[in-house]
Amino acid sequence: VIDGCPSGVELDLDAVQMDLNRRKPGQSKIVTQRKESDEFQVLSGFFEGKTIGTPLTFFIPNTDQKSKDYGHIADKFRPSHADYTYHAKYGTRDYRGGGRSSARETAARVIAGAVAKQILAKEGIEFKACVSQVGDIRLAGNYFNWDWSAVENNPVRCADEDMAQVMEDLIAKIKKEGDTIGGVVTGVITGVPAGLGEPVFDRLDAELAKAMLSINASKGFEYGSGFKGVHMLGSEHNDAFEMQEGKVRTRTNNSGGIQGGISNGEDIFFNVAFKPVATIMRDQDSVDENGQHVTVSGKGRHDPCVVPRAVPIVEAMSAITVLDMWLKWKAYR
Amino acid sequence: VIDGCPSGVELDLDAVQMDLNRRKPGQSKIVTQRKESDEFQVLSGFFEGKTIGTPLTFFIPNTDQKSKDYGHIADKFRPSHADYTYHAKYGTRDYRGGGRSSARETAARVIAGAVAKQILAKEGIEFKACVSQVGDIRLAGNYFNWDWSAVENNPVRCADEDMAQVMEDLIAKIKKEGDTIGGVVTGVITGVPAGLGEPVFDRLDAELAKAMLSINASKGFEYGSGFKGVHMLGSEHNDAFEMQEGKVRTRTNNSGGIQGGISNGEDIFFNVAFKPVATIMRDQDSVDENGQHVTVSGKGRHDPCVVPRAVPIVEAMSAITVLDMWLKWKAYR
Amino acid sequence: VIDGCPSGVELDLDAVQMDLNRRKPGQSKIVTQRKESDEFQVLSGFFEGKTIGTPLTFFIPNTDQKSKDYGHIADKFRPSHADYTYHAKYGTRDYRGGGRSSARETAARVIAGAVAKQILAKEGIEFKACVSQVGDIRLAGNYFNWDWSAVENNPVRCADEDMAQVMEDLIAKIKKEGDTIGGVVTGVITGVPAGLGEPVFDRLDAELAKAMLSINASKGFEYGSGFKGVHMLGSEHNDAFEMQEGKVRTRTNNSGGIQGGISNGEDIFFNVAFKPVATIMRDQDSVDENGQHVTVSGKGRHDPCVVPRAVPIVEAMSAITVLDMWLKWKAYR
Amino acid sequence: VIDGCPSGVELDLDAVQMDLNRRKPGQSKIVTQRKESDEFQVLSGFFEGKTIGTPLTFFIPNTDQKSKDYGHIADKFRPSHADYTYHAKYGTRDYRGGGRSSARETAARVIAGAVAKQILAKEGIEFKACVSQVGDIRLAGNYFNWDWSAVENNPVRCADEDMAQVMEDLIAKIKKEGDTIGGVVTGVITGVPAGLGEPVFDRLDAELAKAMLSINASKGFEYGSGFKGVHMLGSEHNDAFEMQEGKVRTRTNNSGGIQGGISNGEDIFFNVAFKPVATIMRDQDSVDENGQHVTVSGKGRHDPCVVPRAVPIVEAMSAITVLDMWLKWKAYR
Repeated sequence: VIDGCPSGVELDLDAVQMDLNRRKPGQSKIVTQRKESDEFQVLSGFFEGKTIGTPLTFFIPNTDQKSKDYGHIADKFRPSHADYTYHAKYGTRDYRGGGRSSARETAARVIAGAVAKQILAKEGIEFKACVSQVGDIRLAGNYFNWDWSAVENNPVRCADEDMAQVMEDLIAKIKKEGDTIGGVVTGVITGVPAGLGEPVFDRLDAELAKAMLSINASKGFEYGSGFKGVHMLGSEHNDAFEMQEGKVRTRTNNSGGIQGGISNGEDIFFNVAFKPVATIMRDQDSVDENGQHVTVSGKGRHDPCVVPRAVPIVEAMSAITVLDMWLKWKAYR
Repeated sequence: VIDGCPSGVELDLDAVQMDLNRRKPGQSKIVTQRKESDEFQVLSGFFEGKTIGTPLTFFIPNTDQKSKDYGHIADKFRPSHADYTYHAKYGTRDYRGGGRSSARETAARVIAGAVAKQILAKEGIEFKACVSQVGDIRLAGNYFNWDWSAVENNPVRCADEDMAQVMEDLIAKIKKEGDTIGGVVTGVITGVPAGLGEPVFDRLDAELAKAMLSINASKGFEYGSGFKGVHMLGSEHNDAFEMQEGKVRTRTNNSGGIQGGISNGEDIFFNVAFKPVATIMRDQDSVDENGQHVTVSGKGRHDPCVVPRAVPIVEAMSAITVLDMWLKWKAYR
Repeated sequence: VIDGCPSGVELDLDAVQMDLNRRKPGQSKIVTQRKESDEFQVLSGFFEGKTIGTPLTFFIPNTDQKSKDYGHIADKFRPSHADYTYHAKYGTRDYRGGGRSSARETAARVIAGAVAKQILAKEGIEFKACVSQVGDIRLAGNYFNWDWSAVENNPVRCADEDMAQVMEDLIAKIKKEGDTIGGVVTGVITGVPAGLGEPVFDRLDAELAKAMLSINASKGFEYGSGFKGVHMLGSEHNDAFEMQEGKVRTRTNNSGGIQGGISNGEDIFFNVAFKPVATIMRDQDSVDENGQHVTVSGKGRHDPCVVPRAVPIVEAMSAITVLDMWLKWKAYR
Repeated sequence: VIDGCPSGVELDLDAVQMDLNRRKPGQSKIVTQRKESDEFQVLSGFFEGKTIGTPLTFFIPNTDQKSKDYGHIADKFRPSHADYTYHAKYGTRDYRGGGRSSARETAARVIAGAVAKQILAKEGIEFKACVSQVGDIRLAGNYFNWDWSAVENNPVRCADEDMAQVMEDLIAKIKKEGDTIGGVVTGVITGVPAGLGEPVFDRLDAELAKAMLSINASKGFEYGSGFKGVHMLGSEHNDAFEMQEGKVRTRTNNSGGIQGGISNGEDIFFNVAFKPVATIMRDQDSVDENGQHVTVSGKGRHDPCVVPRAVPIVEAMSAITVLDMWLKWKAYR
């Protein structure tokens, strides 16, 4: 359910489905082979090809749910999953595929993000993301030097064909060993006008950080110079202002397009760290709901590395966050 | 103004003042020599030594405001400050000390955090933070091996006396050169019960990320294994569960005390990256409100490195965030 | 979608359906003869007979939607409906049955209310409502003298069998004339502990007022002495306190159970005014989307008086409001 | 503290003070003779004559606080005041003048409302209110027939000089008897464009109802036809649409300017019922914090009728509510 969607927007539902397909399992050999068709129905908010201002409701029926897949873990807490914390919080939980803590929940985010992207595209605001690191394999240089046209042409969604192959080989090797590996997704937002973001608590960087950390398996967020900025001197880090074609611009962009929590009109770019997927094809020590020590055995169909499928989710969360801030900004113009 | 403070809490106002003193300028040679007394008055919400449930209002009069200090920058955009973005957003701004974008605003956060800390201390929840990196100088090992008793005994607020001296020397050298340097603050929260944090968007890690990125000059956040977790295999990263004294515990803590966005009862720890302070004692290229190229000259009394004074702010934002989540958690018990 | 529902609650889905049946069309001769089965499916949040803390999603497929019913009004603004205001706000609208402004939306409220009622029943908090006025026919006396057992035994849902008959006859007569009539629903909440409601803006009475005015066709709200209290002297109106069985009680209850916006432990009671239904079986002057004067002719299947079906909605909105306040109250205990 | 105020607004602080003076005690013989100067200081958000987009903070020091005035009621629950409910909710309370539940809190609302009025005046939206009833004395006719120019020329703030005198005499008589009386304030909002208000829960009428019920001593709210609409037939009540000067207008206005929760461009008008003031100059039965029966004696300086001073508060709450909705509306244009 997407509340607060502007009315009169012509939505391209095929583009929504395309983003969903980028997230769905079974796309390539290096992602889980679960089959989820992820085909959606529109239940409300859309009439005669346009949004009507009322909540947009999309519904994705689960077509490949196999409850029997989960019987062996019904009362066991899988290490580094949310089984134990959900149990502790709610006293009960739906053990099927992690229930609500399942990354399947992100399909809804991708839909909302696809809608937000379409609305903001009309304002000249664009979102892109790619895999920039898998394990120790990191894409060198800066986002503006990368080959963004390559992203959707390789299963890793890396912005460099050659590095993509190296990453793919690494993921394939790790998969064979029944293990998993972490990675980094880099997001870039272009065309944001100066002035988005609220002072003090609801800064644009703070809202992006929250949005990114809300994605399953993410462990960190940095924007602009990020953790590297720690090593820099103020004289290196500061972005001098200059006039370009009548506009105030910065000569460098260590600020990552955000100063004092508010967009300055430059590109916004950031990294999101993802941990290795918790489900591994190995035996692990754990406990069950009765406090008994048990062994959890890896079964089922899971991803050896989450980042290729995280790319559309990072884009979606960026778009949702910017749309919220953009509507606030518009209220005061 | 602190809304939502529980009633009947005996507040130690001296402890609040002590936290404020840890943030205030002029404490040592390596921080700005501005004199702000930061003495507060309580305007409401406090009666006969206890909170009464209604908004707690604290007021810190500005006793060292020198408007003339700011005349030279009234219409210039200082590089990597919020001058331009505020101007772009609001069409006008208070140029005195950055106005609302001034870090002076964080004094209010420290007060609120000091109150939150006192409330949560009664529940066994404790907050601490220290400087773990300045420029390239990084504290080795893990937070649980550090000497936390050292933190308030050195002007850097580093959890190691020897490293503190190295960092202090580095900051002093950089100050002499009229430059500034970045750093990292590590925060640790102990005693949080399992179950805090809301699924999907309002996860505990997401709220902490937002809180930390909302602090002036912060550029990144990571918790648990963080960006290092990217390099790890699932089999290394997963935290096996085991029973200890009748409680479900994890053998390792790469999860950083949060799984699926919800606390699991282990220590919560995280890093916050801070960029070098934007005000440097050098001439910089910039533009003014009229689009003319100008030179901004460093003047005034500023910090060569923000992290020593950021330590109580990180503690405060952690405490505010956890108190909010703790109240939500309590509503459902 | 019901967010924030406590976990581990055993839900009686039959009771939910029963409340839905009290709202649905076609129950009796004096309500609309549209056939909406209002049978729901539970999509999420419910597992093995209990809520699991995650959003409860109910889905009511529309089984009797006849788009052709609405062709004659597709571009006309029906007087005193929301057609024009939705058109003005959104630039477009779903003209089928009023789209989102259709009272059919209240089915969702009834479900949420039925869930809230079940949760609060365990705390001893009960909700009831009845029709106390139709046109000029008003139930005399006070709510505590009425025959509440009669409510579900007559089609008007009046708390008095004889008056119910008079009201029913009036409604039948008006229906025959192709006209409609207004009415009043009285709500009573018992068992609310002292202390619910937030000072200043989010008072319990203010939240109830908002909840009731958010119901379609409602025009007014009053609680306790209400508009009659205007005529009273302070010496008559004040509710003296006294001790009863060790509890602080009021001798009278002009306060309607709420003082200073906070519940005082007495019964909460209130009236909600409903206007006559806007759809009448007569020709009316209006304009269309092109600014042309047109005649709107009454067709379709509509209610001559909304209040019999509004009773479960008033109960539901009370229960939702009190549950929200009760959770806040519990967070601070 | 007013958050969310647009920037660049030239504020007339004298007009703010004038509204405050309309609320303050001691204006005439028929209101309390307490002396509160109600002079405010601006602490933030205002620079060089304009708002700067950051929170506007106003501070009214209490210059006539006499704690000794309240010693006789420190541990007693005054009938129909908030003493008991605050005690029940918070376990403690500030007994001086009712503490936070004191109507003195409404001074802050008047300031915020005065600011909102100035912002909306530039959009052609105007707010007015008057006393239309005191006890049984009710102003006949409709708001558009009344003499609004009379309102500030009589101490009752009635929109009719003759009725004002009758009401004033009634209040004076009741004051002499040590008693108090209720009243009704009628509010009118003109110039609101069609489209303000959110569907379902946050309707314009629902938000106005909440705002009005949040005022101390209010007991009811009705808009448009209100409780009188209950008696009407649909054929009488419906407001036919017609074109006037190229605009869609309604021939009558039983809708009170709001249809389906959204403004339709017509005048918005409503009534707010106020109970008789709870403090009377007579002995009353009550209990104290220890559960002992006590007598509460009327002392101090209080109002015999609250409505003359409630007029600017009703205006203020209308303006605050409409500004919020107007900003939301603007975000989607």
